[in-house]
Amino acid sequence: MSQEPGGGGFSGLPDRAGAIHRYLAVRADTEQLASPLSEEDQLLQSSPLCSPTKWHRAHTTWFFETFLLEPRGIAPIDPRYRFLFNSYYDAVGPRHARPKRGLLSRPTASEVASYRRTVDGRMVELLSSLDDVELGALLPALELGLAHEEQHQELMLTDILHAFHENPLLPAYRAGTSKAGAAATSAALDGATPDHLFAGGLIEIGASSRGAFAFDNEGPRHKVWLEPFQLARRLVTVGEMKAFIQAGGYRTPSLWLSEGYEWATARQIDAPCYWHHSGPDWLIFGLDGLRELPDNEPVSHVSYYEADAVARFLGGRLPSEQEWEAAASHVRSAGNFVSSSALRPLAARVETDGPTQMFGDVWEWTRSSYEPYPGYRPAAGAFGEYNGKFMVNQRVLRGGSCFTPDGHVRSTYRNFWHPDTRFQVTGIRVAKDA
Amino acid sequence: MSQEPGGGGFSGLPDRAGAIHRYLAVRADTEQLASPLSEEDQLLQSSPLCSPTKWHRAHTTWFFETFLLEPRGIAPIDPRYRFLFNSYYDAVGPRHARPKRGLLSRPTASEVASYRRTVDGRMVELLSSLDDVELGALLPALELGLAHEEQHQELMLTDILHAFHENPLLPAYRAGTSKAGAAATSAALDGATPDHLFAGGLIEIGASSRGAFAFDNEGPRHKVWLEPFQLARRLVTVGEMKAFIQAGGYRTPSLWLSEGYEWATARQIDAPCYWHHSGPDWLIFGLDGLRELPDNEPVSHVSYYEADAVARFLGGRLPSEQEWEAAASHVRSAGNFVSSSALRPLAARVETDGPTQMFGDVWEWTRSSYEPYPGYRPAAGAFGEYNGKFMVNQRVLRGGSCFTPDGHVRSTYRNFWHPDTRFQVTGIRVAKDA
Amino acid sequence: MSQEPGGGGFSGLPDRAGAIHRYLAVRADTEQLASPLSEEDQLLQSSPLCSPTKWHRAHTTWFFETFLLEPRGIAPIDPRYRFLFNSYYDAVGPRHARPKRGLLSRPTASEVASYRRTVDGRMVELLSSLDDVELGALLPALELGLAHEEQHQELMLTDILHAFHENPLLPAYRAGTSKAGAAATSAALDGATPDHLFAGGLIEIGASSRGAFAFDNEGPRHKVWLEPFQLARRLVTVGEMKAFIQAGGYRTPSLWLSEGYEWATARQIDAPCYWHHSGPDWLIFGLDGLRELPDNEPVSHVSYYEADAVARFLGGRLPSEQEWEAAASHVRSAGNFVSSSALRPLAARVETDGPTQMFGDVWEWTRSSYEPYPGYRPAAGAFGEYNGKFMVNQRVLRGGSCFTPDGHVRSTYRNFWHPDTRFQVTGIRVAKDA
Amino acid sequence: MSQEPGGGGFSGLPDRAGAIHRYLAVRADTEQLASPLSEEDQLLQSSPLCSPTKWHRAHTTWFFETFLLEPRGIAPIDPRYRFLFNSYYDAVGPRHARPKRGLLSRPTASEVASYRRTVDGRMVELLSSLDDVELGALLPALELGLAHEEQHQELMLTDILHAFHENPLLPAYRAGTSKAGAAATSAALDGATPDHLFAGGLIEIGASSRGAFAFDNEGPRHKVWLEPFQLARRLVTVGEMKAFIQAGGYRTPSLWLSEGYEWATARQIDAPCYWHHSGPDWLIFGLDGLRELPDNEPVSHVSYYEADAVARFLGGRLPSEQEWEAAASHVRSAGNFVSSSALRPLAARVETDGPTQMFGDVWEWTRSSYEPYPGYRPAAGAFGEYNGKFMVNQRVLRGGSCFTPDGHVRSTYRNFWHPDTRFQVTGIRVAKDA
Repeated sequence: MSQEPGGGGFSGLPDRAGAIHRYLAVRADTEQLASPLSEEDQLLQSSPLCSPTKWHRAHTTWFFETFLLEPRGIAPIDPRYRFLFNSYYDAVGPRHARPKRGLLSRPTASEVASYRRTVDGRMVELLSSLDDVELGALLPALELGLAHEEQHQELMLTDILHAFHENPLLPAYRAGTSKAGAAATSAALDGATPDHLFAGGLIEIGASSRGAFAFDNEGPRHKVWLEPFQLARRLVTVGEMKAFIQAGGYRTPSLWLSEGYEWATARQIDAPCYWHHSGPDWLIFGLDGLRELPDNEPVSHVSYYEADAVARFLGGRLPSEQEWEAAASHVRSAGNFVSSSALRPLAARVETDGPTQMFGDVWEWTRSSYEPYPGYRPAAGAFGEYNGKFMVNQRVLRGGSCFTPDGHVRSTYRNFWHPDTRFQVTGIRVAKDA
Repeated sequence: MSQEPGGGGFSGLPDRAGAIHRYLAVRADTEQLASPLSEEDQLLQSSPLCSPTKWHRAHTTWFFETFLLEPRGIAPIDPRYRFLFNSYYDAVGPRHARPKRGLLSRPTASEVASYRRTVDGRMVELLSSLDDVELGALLPALELGLAHEEQHQELMLTDILHAFHENPLLPAYRAGTSKAGAAATSAALDGATPDHLFAGGLIEIGASSRGAFAFDNEGPRHKVWLEPFQLARRLVTVGEMKAFIQAGGYRTPSLWLSEGYEWATARQIDAPCYWHHSGPDWLIFGLDGLRELPDNEPVSHVSYYEADAVARFLGGRLPSEQEWEAAASHVRSAGNFVSSSALRPLAARVETDGPTQMFGDVWEWTRSSYEPYPGYRPAAGAFGEYNGKFMVNQRVLRGGSCFTPDGHVRSTYRNFWHPDTRFQVTGIRVAKDA
Repeated sequence: MSQEPGGGGFSGLPDRAGAIHRYLAVRADTEQLASPLSEEDQLLQSSPLCSPTKWHRAHTTWFFETFLLEPRGIAPIDPRYRFLFNSYYDAVGPRHARPKRGLLSRPTASEVASYRRTVDGRMVELLSSLDDVELGALLPALELGLAHEEQHQELMLTDILHAFHENPLLPAYRAGTSKAGAAATSAALDGATPDHLFAGGLIEIGASSRGAFAFDNEGPRHKVWLEPFQLARRLVTVGEMKAFIQAGGYRTPSLWLSEGYEWATARQIDAPCYWHHSGPDWLIFGLDGLRELPDNEPVSHVSYYEADAVARFLGGRLPSEQEWEAAASHVRSAGNFVSSSALRPLAARVETDGPTQMFGDVWEWTRSSYEPYPGYRPAAGAFGEYNGKFMVNQRVLRGGSCFTPDGHVRSTYRNFWHPDTRFQVTGIRVAKDA
Repeated sequence: MSQEPGGGGFSGLPDRAGAIHRYLAVRADTEQLASPLSEEDQLLQSSPLCSPTKWHRAHTTWFFETFLLEPRGIAPIDPRYRFLFNSYYDAVGPRHARPKRGLLSRPTASEVASYRRTVDGRMVELLSSLDDVELGALLPALELGLAHEEQHQELMLTDILHAFHENPLLPAYRAGTSKAGAAATSAALDGATPDHLFAGGLIEIGASSRGAFAFDNEGPRHKVWLEPFQLARRLVTVGEMKAFIQAGGYRTPSLWLSEGYEWATARQIDAPCYWHHSGPDWLIFGLDGLRELPDNEPVSHVSYYEADAVARFLGGRLPSEQEWEAAASHVRSAGNFVSSSALRPLAARVETDGPTQMFGDVWEWTRSSYEPYPGYRPAAGAFGEYNGKFMVNQRVLRGGSCFTPDGHVRSTYRNFWHPDTRFQVTGIRVAKDA
């Protein structure tokens, strides 16, 4: 999501009460995630790709106001918000310049809180008062709005992490460092060797239009031919990343895509984002501040270029998104998501036959360019802008991360970012041809 | 080829005499193409993506010297050329900065001519003196070197066109305008409607390792599942491009990829490259200078972004490279290549049942990102850098153009450029889901 | 002050009680000026040339801590502030990157307030406890620190104005628009004709080392030969600026310096900074928000390039700083400074024989490049960095503005900015050769 | 001359025959200087600030055609040259983009030679056929055109030096290295100590309108008050520059102007332009190719920033242009100019009482910003653009260099470049307050 999230599909909301409940729960989660941050913190924008916390809180609200309330005749709370909090919807009209979101001291954080509360009230009133037919017609947009807000919950965390990293004081998002999982070892999982075999063949991937909610870019479900391949049972670790560094991997052109090598050289990149030299070793900056970096933790905050080079260094390659989905489709979509409160990837712990860490921990770069599936057709109107118009120069990532809300992703879920992106929670799993 | 060409496969050279003959013929073609240009013309570099004619002439010679003569103990003519005329081979060593190729007044154009002649002499001597086994071992590299030189022949034309366009005098590459084909009409081919149906299914594409020469990126041959699709029988024309412009296509965001629209807006692009306003109509600058632009000629010099938008405007989409290859695999690879001397795309003339203009005229943008095929493995050493390291952020083009040497392309041939490229001879064919 | 203020001279502080009183008064003025701004407002940094209000408040405090308290053995409150709030003193050590001052949500605005209060306490204690000799030795640095803080008071206003202008809501710094002076006319002062004659000759300018406090760049006092010249009795007005625009001044190269014309053309500049089209007329954005723009008000927020072109358009030229000082040396340095609460330049009202508006209203661009005076020698140590190292590529401005604290400027006072600066309160007075 | 030369004054041409003779001599000198360069060499443009040799040859011809022939009814040889070879005269009309001069392979070098010959013929015919009154009226423009061409003769050398430096082969402008002066020592001139005293006082500087030809920026002659000062008797040498480097001068901020230090740091500058590391020592690239760098040779190719820092390092400062002129006004304007054929600065050899090397060798940076003299008024029309419009952000240089044509400069001559300029032959003389 180099832009930000969009364009959904089909509702899995059960009923009126359930819908209201889920609406309020998602909305409360957003406020909960923002709560450790002061009004000043919430104004920070440290890159044109990041947005202030306050802006995320307002934009997700704008989404409900613009796409659910306005079409039903409920006038906007402040007509100027249509301009300020539009992210990228040309169909809605002009918008505030993205790199200048951090200059909006007004409306204030408390005005935004009030905006959220008012819209929540109007939403609950609407959901309560519509008749069943009207409610049924509204549910897909509601589900999209909630999935959209969940995407922004993750972005709130990635963006404040990036902002705090620009402050020499290196403030922590939360006070006490969680030590959960720090002691875990990956003894049983030696090596990132892609040793788990998949048979390939003519399979089906993608979300079906008859199932639960999915974004439009996850469908249509379609056939694809896969050659046999092998997949590593766990993610690439910090220890393996250090070996890559030690071996001069960042200065060995034969390991890299040409553009990747130019990128790393021009920026003098010699380690993942947020890694800090500490004598001979490394520390990492995260939501708990600066901390030690255990070797068995999955490496994160690497670009596609680095992921591609490290996979080659380890004797393999990145999986395609079709391979990943084929492997993930039989795995339960549980893992280290935001509710674990780790807020960092955790060492692989469970010994299983098949691949672990497929969900949560880190978004896994795939070798697949982000393209429309066969037969893909964006929705008419503004929702059609959610996903389709970003399908160029980006790579697909799969599986969600430790910043992703629980229940948000599934095996068909397609995240996407430009190959040079490092501020997201992005990691590596190695594949190879069988 | 946003960088430039590379990395081949298997030889189709018949025998010693044939090899010498083909070597001399390809080398002579290069000099023939350069012959209308003065020494000053041959020094022009109008963009970091373009190279001077003289540099192309020297680099292709360097290729034979470095990869065929040196490994057989024949010392280089000037050791400094190893640095000056290396394009992008890290394995060979450091190289002159690409954007500064136009500052090499020395070696002079006539020193480069002499360099070519000396290497040609050494090559003929080598090809004549090797025993059969040695010759057989050398042939793949020879074939690669010749295919490589053919690629640079096309680039010599695209690059001098770009350079001359920067001169307000708008000089022509050749004196008299060829009028060939100007009178042709496309009466029988009304519309770019993608009306030719292909059934899809599980098919095979790519070059087999047992066939004639192909670049490594064309293989391995592999299975792919295609849904049924339709393909336009001819290329999109100038007339259709004018309709797009007339309808405000360049200022209609819903027709574009988001990055494409930003690209067009930021650069104030309102027509294909080399189009010039002439009152209410347009002229086009080409190798024959400024000329009129008939409506039935295929449009060329459009970026991927424009191609994508125009296809959408015409109610379709771009084909995938697999679709294109499936359609092209039964078509003879003949068409308007460089030997026709038109040096511009020509209106579709032949009425056939199936698609026309699949080969020659313009490179056809496909919707496919340039990726390795399943099982792709670059060669070891410097040849491994020919193609593989460019497989990110580029789009595949198919079919060759009116600047391409005859016999150079085939149905499996994959050209590739970044989506914003316009100085190549690039055009559009529309597809749609069946 | 394209960087910011610096490097003073000799104390005019009367005695211990007076020193303490003046210290507390200047410090209180800063907080008073910041008081209408929320914590979020105080974090805004809308350009690398501007700093957040909070940063100004901390940096001026850092100045006293670093240059007065630390040398007297009083340990810093937070050693990290040495890095965060150093502006440009290499002698003090490394510093936080200037363009990233707006990313410092921590320390918070209230931590900065606390920092100020603690330092104030320590300063008062120090000033009370030193013996007379020690106090006398400290006074020059104290006076410099206070003059420094006054400079930052003006910058706080110019910088928040710039930041608020980036917000589409165009918030006002203060609630109710002051209408003071709006009705004033300049009836008696028709034209900006430079009709007041000065005889020239061998005169002295600059601050003497034996007088009251002055920055080091104001001295040494020295002789200069002036030819006779004429000076306009009032500033160039909005009405005259409109005439310049109406006459196509922004698109007439013969009125401009070559670099100025390129600057205006490349940036598509067609009016002073903060002017907004309002149908056929203009509004201006200021600390009171958007307001009407009376013709008789002095024009402000013009670059040197524009000032130079407008003076030429009006048949004159800008005065040299020596001419300006010669004219100002007999005028009382009173005028529309910050205490008038107008916070915008006011129409000339008083009819006098000599020039009016020499002090206050707007900083007046002079044609003089900012250079050291003959015999100028920067102080040793960090104070030597205050002024001297900025003496290249800048122009001198004279007289202070409606944002300048009362009593801050004098006839010898030299402000300086790069020629393309427009966010300061900068205006024009016309001169010509007699 | 960051742009290039301009705007003259009053003729010193003696008579008709003398005028024709001088015209032909200057024009022949240009061709002589260009003669070692091939057609390819003459097309090189290695920076937007440099122009191709061919362009210089055409532009100086355009000057005579546009300002002398056209006004007398002689139609231009090719109307398109008005656009191609206009440098910066807005009054003449639009012009070809400066950074693209190196893309003009047409007109060819031989077409430019022919253009020169045809204009020369027309000029001689005109000078022969005008009556005495008409001739007298034309002479000022003729003298300006010739001084203009002399300025471009120097630029041809500085620009080809810059271009050849971009070629890894480091070609020499001329074949055999001149060793003239290499053995010279400066034994008698130990140190660059500014030990020659000048009394100062009220003096006159500038060119009088009644004297020989001078550019308009050299006048009017006017009074200026100077304090007593001391001037070094010779230029700063390579040996002193090495001492600066050795002492870490490039990384000592207290020696630098703030912008200068940022400039040097950002560009990683650690030596003058064209200096090459050669083990522990240095070589220099010049018109004779790469050569050793004797310690007693004057340092050249330094920016104003470096000159300012080195003067400070040596305990002094740069002289003002008024000081320089006061010192030079009693020195004969002879020295190491282009006719010496050294084409590089030579060690000081003559022991005199007063300053040596004031003329020739290197242009000497002064601390003076390039400003109009009191009473300066540019000419009406295009000639008014020659000098006046560049009077901002540049520094004055004095005295001419080893690339300057003999007789071109005088004590009042003002050259000017931006402070970051290094490709000109620029050096340092130290001054200090007495």
